[in-house]
Amino acid sequence: MKLTSIIPPQVNLANGSFTAPDVQHKSTLLGSLAGIFADHLAWQAMPAESAVYHVEMLPSCAQEGELFVGTTHLQPGKVGDEFFMTRGHFHQRREQAEFYFGLRGNGLLLLQHQEGDCTLEQVFAGSVHHIPSFTAHRLINTSDEVLSALAVWPTVAGHDYSALQPLGFKLRVFADGTGWKAEAQYE
Amino acid sequence: MKLTSIIPPQVNLANGSFTAPDVQHKSTLLGSLAGIFADHLAWQAMPAESAVYHVEMLPSCAQEGELFVGTTHLQPGKVGDEFFMTRGHFHQRREQAEFYFGLRGNGLLLLQHQEGDCTLEQVFAGSVHHIPSFTAHRLINTSDEVLSALAVWPTVAGHDYSALQPLGFKLRVFADGTGWKAEAQYE
Repeated sequence: MKLTSIIPPQVNLANGSFTAPDVQHKSTLLGSLAGIFADHLAWQAMPAESAVYHVEMLPSCAQEGELFVGTTHLQPGKVGDEFFMTRGHFHQRREQAEFYFGLRGNGLLLLQHQEGDCTLEQVFAGSVHHIPSFTAHRLINTSDEVLSALAVWPTVAGHDYSALQPLGFKLRVFADGTGWKAEAQYE
Repeated sequence: MKLTSIIPPQVNLANGSFTAPDVQHKSTLLGSLAGIFADHLAWQAMPAESAVYHVEMLPSCAQEGELFVGTTHLQPGKVGDEFFMTRGHFHQRREQAEFYFGLRGNGLLLLQHQEGDCTLEQVFAGSVHHIPSFTAHRLINTSDEVLSALAVWPTVAGHDYSALQPLGFKLRVFADGTGWKAEAQYE
């Protein structure tokens, strides 16, 4: 039995960056987000290699009951008048929930329940977001700085991006002067 | 469809306190912790109504896949030479994991796997603790200030306090000069 203590992984609570020997990273570039933004021509005119968001997370194991922790860093920017956002997804296992914690920046979390109801929650340092079961979720950066949110979710949850195709989320969020406006895309 | 945004619950990232209309609170008093500390006479001599720790959490629903979020605030103090600590538990559903995030103070997280192996992890602002499945866990405050740790865990996990009885955790942590020492209680 060891009678000493170990130093665990760490997260910078001001920006969500992890310090650990085995942090995993994944960047999502603008070029991979075909069909996500409303203004296709504006999207085509922008550099495909621009990073829109970056996820860092700690490894975990995929067994039932286990959890992941990770941070999404969403860059500021717009495609036409539409703010940068994550692709967004349902969980493959629809009954699996998630928590987000805003750590840096300002933006919105778009929640769309399987039955179609949408909610926009304000994301800021200290905001706590319960993403219920059966609910698709997308981060939107409405500010001029990076939006960083820490997430905890079940490892068995998985991602289902196709359920929202071809229509996508019901709401889109556009710049409106110095603020934002949400517009319904369909009923 | 609502096209406005809502302000979600908030957590003070410096101490783990929640701001929400429906925060739930539970205090654990010294008098309810019979048999937890090694020095029974010292425990008896202390005021039973002293708060040892306080948990605040947001409500959630108990269905499979859902998650709780809450913060444990563990007071500084000692019973004899043994630092204040939480009762500690296995999850009733042993396969259910948990994450802790240190937010304030300094202490230790004692992990005891079902097979008996123990680990002590240092808890501090920004520490990230993966509590694996099949692993009992207890917070220990080795400092002179409140130790606060935010947790996310599956709502179906439940608590099993009896599995550690009558022997309790294998390790106890005592003051040792200005620091601490861990002692094995049994093999």
